[in-house]
Amino acid sequence: MDPRIREHAQVIADHSTGIEAGDMVVLSAPPEAEDLLVALYEAIGDRDATPIHVGQSERADRAFMRAADQEELETPRHTKALYEESDVLITIRAPRNATETSDVEPAATAARQRASQPVQEVALSKRWCLTQFPTAASAQLAETSSEAYEQFVWDAVNLDWEAQRDFQEEMVERLDSASTVRIVSGERTDLTMSIDGMIPINDDARHNLPGGEVFTAPVFESVAGEVYFDKPVYRQGREVTDARLVFEEGEVVEYAAEKNEDVLTEILETDPGARRLGELGIGMNREIDRFTYNMLFDEKMGDTVHLAVGNAYDMTVGENQEGNDSAAHVDMIVDMTTDSRIELDGEVVQRDGTFAFEEGFEG
Amino acid sequence: MDPRIREHAQVIADHSTGIEAGDMVVLSAPPEAEDLLVALYEAIGDRDATPIHVGQSERADRAFMRAADQEELETPRHTKALYEESDVLITIRAPRNATETSDVEPAATAARQRASQPVQEVALSKRWCLTQFPTAASAQLAETSSEAYEQFVWDAVNLDWEAQRDFQEEMVERLDSASTVRIVSGERTDLTMSIDGMIPINDDARHNLPGGEVFTAPVFESVAGEVYFDKPVYRQGREVTDARLVFEEGEVVEYAAEKNEDVLTEILETDPGARRLGELGIGMNREIDRFTYNMLFDEKMGDTVHLAVGNAYDMTVGENQEGNDSAAHVDMIVDMTTDSRIELDGEVVQRDGTFAFEEGFEG
Repeated sequence: MDPRIREHAQVIADHSTGIEAGDMVVLSAPPEAEDLLVALYEAIGDRDATPIHVGQSERADRAFMRAADQEELETPRHTKALYEESDVLITIRAPRNATETSDVEPAATAARQRASQPVQEVALSKRWCLTQFPTAASAQLAETSSEAYEQFVWDAVNLDWEAQRDFQEEMVERLDSASTVRIVSGERTDLTMSIDGMIPINDDARHNLPGGEVFTAPVFESVAGEVYFDKPVYRQGREVTDARLVFEEGEVVEYAAEKNEDVLTEILETDPGARRLGELGIGMNREIDRFTYNMLFDEKMGDTVHLAVGNAYDMTVGENQEGNDSAAHVDMIVDMTTDSRIELDGEVVQRDGTFAFEEGFEG
Repeated sequence: MDPRIREHAQVIADHSTGIEAGDMVVLSAPPEAEDLLVALYEAIGDRDATPIHVGQSERADRAFMRAADQEELETPRHTKALYEESDVLITIRAPRNATETSDVEPAATAARQRASQPVQEVALSKRWCLTQFPTAASAQLAETSSEAYEQFVWDAVNLDWEAQRDFQEEMVERLDSASTVRIVSGERTDLTMSIDGMIPINDDARHNLPGGEVFTAPVFESVAGEVYFDKPVYRQGREVTDARLVFEEGEVVEYAAEKNEDVLTEILETDPGARRLGELGIGMNREIDRFTYNMLFDEKMGDTVHLAVGNAYDMTVGENQEGNDSAAHVDMIVDMTTDSRIELDGEVVQRDGTFAFEEGFEG
């Protein structure tokens, strides 16, 4: 077995989920991830914990969703019972065909997600981790060879997470003491928002592997200015390119996109909260040096900023603050490598992809 | 998809387990069985039931069992909770390599089985079905081509089970009113036993798919005579050929085998019950016309008899009778197609593979 796979399994078992003797562990993985599954079963055996493997088959899911009556979908009570008796839940993404469920009605997918909501809530109350195993389909989506994609994934995942956490903590501290953030990039992005009383989170790869971002919630009514997204938004198999949003008093008042603007319209019309900002994230994992149409990686890309319209994460919203509320949460990415800066209370904290706490910074 | 796979799924869903609206269903299947998994997800969706897919990976199981400390193995409480909240459990066998766990210590396998015993008990209290999906590894074990093996499996599985049940019921009725069974085949098999007060069961493919046998328990102390097994016994990757047992007052007093006699010794020395008979079965599924080293099929082969040393099934033991008790249960097969007969209370009920209730029977 490729030694990078065993290393990946160890990062999951020790760093992300801290598996120990007596733990009941659920491993959710499709057949493509079998090597990582095997390495994890070995790691779980080594640690005297107990595994169960829950299969993932998008072909089977598609067949079920096309056959089932949406009105009759029930909460999977058996799956909920399984999760309730578990300590650790590990989900491995490894698609064989990234568009396998493209001919399932979005309403059917949404109905199934609603029915599974109580299961999802149990899952989020456990030690959980979402990760990726490289497959040909993921490489194809990323427009790269399988070998190059494997290297990309394992470089991003098998990091020195202690060092990465310390690096990110520099940014957390600065955000923690700041009130106003300004994002400027090129001619088309100049956005200002307050983060007063909000909580910056250091994503050091507990729940997401790879991790590598610092994120918080904006005071949503404070958002003003315009933003141009350099990277496409990939949504249910459709790519929205050159998206642009204009904010006034926290609301999107104008928007446009080059390709698939109607998808952007759908997103913004989900509910009133979908026209407001729920997240500001700063990508700091420099092993992620290219866009791969996979948000688990894209949002952590080094020297990017991402903004999500829609729901704010509870953990980022301060006690006396209100987070934005929405059924949507769609991340979009701004490239910060050239002609760009992040300002905190008027002071530049990153310019052209170099942070103020790094060598070579020119304030 | 091959229409025989959809038919297989329908037999499982309707005949074997009777899936209906609201059922919580567990599907345990390895990657090789994905087509049947997809067909079952479709059938489950059609019937407004709710599936979960539990994966099977013998590579992962092997890695776990080799890594884990046997003393520290715990009951998989999460799996038990899953089963407790389920109505239907379907297990699909579909090996990629039939000898995948051949380098796991038998003691480790046994320890894991012991730890899982409480889970197994819950499973047996539900509507459950064990079936087979054809794979190259199974075909290789059966010494046939993949295409021929597929045809073999689906012919055996996709039977007219109503007609098969009626056919088998003829034998059930005769066994039900009989006291003494005598099995004679060639020069080397002549065995007599009482089945007085025991219960003959019509296996019409509820728990096993394929089904196709009628089985009961002998009054164990009544077994006398000798039996030669025409078909090999396949046990943990080793083949015992030309096995022969001699019974006196229900006990094996002499035995021999051509190849791997030590495996036979191991079986018979499991415990005192392993030297006594726990089951008499009559194979009646004539679509199973060859030996394939797979007991799920072999024991139902048309015109065979199988005898199991070891434990008797509770459902076959009458109220005022005692069934044999053992940790072992090993089936062995006698060919009844030529120079052979089954007698019930001195009356021939099958001669040279033709039953008394069939055309062409010559008493």
